[in-house]
Amino acid sequence: MDLSALKPELLARFAAIVGDSHAIRDAAELAPRLVEGRGLYRGASPLLLKPGSTQEVSAILALASETGTAIVPQTGNTGLVGGQTPREGGNDVILSLERMNRIRDVDPVANVLVADGGAILADVQQAAEAVGRLFPLSLGSEGSCRIGGNLSTNAGGTAVLAYGNMRQLCLGLEVVLPTGEIWDGLRRLKKDNTGYDLRDLFIGAEGTLGIITGAVLKLYPQPAGHQVALAGIGSPEDALRLFERASNLCGPALTGFELMPRIGVEFTTRHIDGVRDPLSEPHPWYVLIDISTSDTAETAEIMIQSLLEQGVEAELVRDAVIASSVAQQKALWHMRESLSDAQKPEGGSIKHDVSVPVSKIPAFMAEAGDAVLKAVPGARICAFGHLGDGNIHYNISQPIGADKAAFIGRWREVNEIVHGVVLSAGGSISAEHGIGQLKRDELAHIRSPIEMELMYRIKRAFDPAGIMNPGKVVTLP
Amino acid sequence: MDLSALKPELLARFAAIVGDSHAIRDAAELAPRLVEGRGLYRGASPLLLKPGSTQEVSAILALASETGTAIVPQTGNTGLVGGQTPREGGNDVILSLERMNRIRDVDPVANVLVADGGAILADVQQAAEAVGRLFPLSLGSEGSCRIGGNLSTNAGGTAVLAYGNMRQLCLGLEVVLPTGEIWDGLRRLKKDNTGYDLRDLFIGAEGTLGIITGAVLKLYPQPAGHQVALAGIGSPEDALRLFERASNLCGPALTGFELMPRIGVEFTTRHIDGVRDPLSEPHPWYVLIDISTSDTAETAEIMIQSLLEQGVEAELVRDAVIASSVAQQKALWHMRESLSDAQKPEGGSIKHDVSVPVSKIPAFMAEAGDAVLKAVPGARICAFGHLGDGNIHYNISQPIGADKAAFIGRWREVNEIVHGVVLSAGGSISAEHGIGQLKRDELAHIRSPIEMELMYRIKRAFDPAGIMNPGKVVTLP
Repeated sequence: MDLSALKPELLARFAAIVGDSHAIRDAAELAPRLVEGRGLYRGASPLLLKPGSTQEVSAILALASETGTAIVPQTGNTGLVGGQTPREGGNDVILSLERMNRIRDVDPVANVLVADGGAILADVQQAAEAVGRLFPLSLGSEGSCRIGGNLSTNAGGTAVLAYGNMRQLCLGLEVVLPTGEIWDGLRRLKKDNTGYDLRDLFIGAEGTLGIITGAVLKLYPQPAGHQVALAGIGSPEDALRLFERASNLCGPALTGFELMPRIGVEFTTRHIDGVRDPLSEPHPWYVLIDISTSDTAETAEIMIQSLLEQGVEAELVRDAVIASSVAQQKALWHMRESLSDAQKPEGGSIKHDVSVPVSKIPAFMAEAGDAVLKAVPGARICAFGHLGDGNIHYNISQPIGADKAAFIGRWREVNEIVHGVVLSAGGSISAEHGIGQLKRDELAHIRSPIEMELMYRIKRAFDPAGIMNPGKVVTLP
Repeated sequence: MDLSALKPELLARFAAIVGDSHAIRDAAELAPRLVEGRGLYRGASPLLLKPGSTQEVSAILALASETGTAIVPQTGNTGLVGGQTPREGGNDVILSLERMNRIRDVDPVANVLVADGGAILADVQQAAEAVGRLFPLSLGSEGSCRIGGNLSTNAGGTAVLAYGNMRQLCLGLEVVLPTGEIWDGLRRLKKDNTGYDLRDLFIGAEGTLGIITGAVLKLYPQPAGHQVALAGIGSPEDALRLFERASNLCGPALTGFELMPRIGVEFTTRHIDGVRDPLSEPHPWYVLIDISTSDTAETAEIMIQSLLEQGVEAELVRDAVIASSVAQQKALWHMRESLSDAQKPEGGSIKHDVSVPVSKIPAFMAEAGDAVLKAVPGARICAFGHLGDGNIHYNISQPIGADKAAFIGRWREVNEIVHGVVLSAGGSISAEHGIGQLKRDELAHIRSPIEMELMYRIKRAFDPAGIMNPGKVVTLP
């Protein structure tokens, strides 16, 4: 296949739907849409369409189904698995929701907000805050990622422990189906048992079953109290014991429980401006504890002090600091959120986004560490993440002095080692980033034939022409 | 169609799968399985099968798909919409999960419990309690309803406000597909973004896409503090204002916020043993407030007192009582949970299980009340329920002295009136009970053609032979 496969007449028909000024064919303007942030995936496309309404999205998909034209939906282009990147053939038309970025409605009494699929996450957070409410989804890319993409990847982030993934934060959807038909499922209901759950089928489908053009999101009261602490600890096992105490003591007030290794703290203090180690001595591991209370600010103070006292008494916590200002709270979170960036100056990094049942985290860490170091002696394992969710970003920096390209060349091999340990613990090879192109073939390999068959049947039932983000998540046999 | 359509040879083949002692053909033994609790639905069946394993369920469904035999799954037979009742033709074979009632595993560290689809809800609650954990689903029928049915109807109940419906309480499923294939999706993961969300498609499908034979359920820490109060208030509007204050103050510690009308309190004190009005004066409306705290018992006390003080100051609360013992807490909840039963001695009752966005509850109550009383002067509206979820059980007792049969004969007419108001408020005609037979035709009427078409495509994709609980939820065109 080559670019000529999409005839100029067809491209002109697509362009006419949105108007020429919103149909981009200029190579320089297209270039940033053909590659994702880390440069892992590059594709080609003759045309980028920026529809301004659900009706225009509908017209585009109807024409695509009629003519068998592949459509790649794109929102903030911040995905990490190549789901938003066109394929290499040059026949995929990109559909960007960036012009559909409105907050349609906010109802602080019903605690709902209705947004376009192209609304930027930070704008949604701010619209909620403006009426005294919280939209809890929080990600490193929140300034540029968009709601349609957050929903299509069932985004996670730092507040999942208390509030859940994007799936739990959504009440209703508006979706344009691959055929161009519009499903108006913009319900604002907490309880609605009326037939099959279409909503959750589109959430997490990575744009392969339709395009999410609107969503009803859940809002929450803003917390009255907020406390953040960093504790130095001895091992993932101790972190798990402390997490058990934290969840018993704080219940849903425990809004974050993040695990970090010593090497991560070293990377951030070495490479990230303004990050310094807040504890006087080094410790093998650290946990960042975040508590939010609804009744009073004092409850959060009492909770975090009680928890750390319990941790010291039980010899789980070796040292700890409680942030004494909002600025200090942000500084502790900044250290945690800089861990990925801090790895870059250390050379190549092979990454994994895995989850296991939370009780199995210590055993997983031990087994995966042994297996990786056996295969790659000197590898520097910087495994960190959302311990409370069982979700570890198992990142491995290259050995000091190793050849970066040769190390990155072992990506698949190392993936297989880590994922093997994950699967034997009943875990997931993609906890929050999704499948996209990166893990598509692996998914088909690790899932049972009947599970893949059910996914194929759903794909065929929703997208009979096969035009919707082809080559992502599943490839039909 | 008549009973002879299912030939004895075929019945014998089914019986051979489970063994004769678990294949019931005796009319007296079958009788209670052919009718649901209130007698609204009656059906006929030549055979009740009680498989003892997932493999036996698989063999039954494979044979059913091969021979085109309709299978009706049944667990506790407590459903309220006829979903578990065989059709009248006498050709539906009933498959009961009652022998598959094991708790397979409990992991209090990972906070998960794995149960058979036939495990009784109360047994699951007790198994959680035995390891110091809470399984929050709580229903009037918890002593007899079973997990497979709870999942298949996405059960709600009294703890949805803080913990969500059954959908939010489930991490993984084991499902036997209509073809007899087994999907092992028994994952114990909080985060797992690997392809289409099959789990949520089976949850709430009312046994029309497969049979849930096993489930991984979420456990929670047991609360340290628990307080229950009853407040007399003036109107649903005041109840909504109080609910806003409660959710701001208590956040996720607000575990129940139930609305009751004066007439409901009168019905319960008149007809239910041991129920008495705990307030000295009558009030137009009441709210039952339930608070559970994780840190200390005192936090719950302080919260409930602060809330009631705020309510009195804002002139929302006219009088209130805080339960001073566990027995008093139970007594207050008993009043609320007896509301349905207390209507029975008052004659016929036309029922609705509806939801609207919580901010629209006062307007819905006013409009629905006007419309119902215009159509049925003297009707006694006993509308109560889970205000915090926007879910009202809009029950209407017959006018005093009216003919019960004539009143009940107006069921559809009154349904249309109430559901009309619900739908104009963007509400749901089935908040928590499901569709079953009762609302099947209405669903096809109120949903868009494209939404029904998507459901038909899913039904065809999962159940090509059309054997899985036919006539429930959807009927293929």
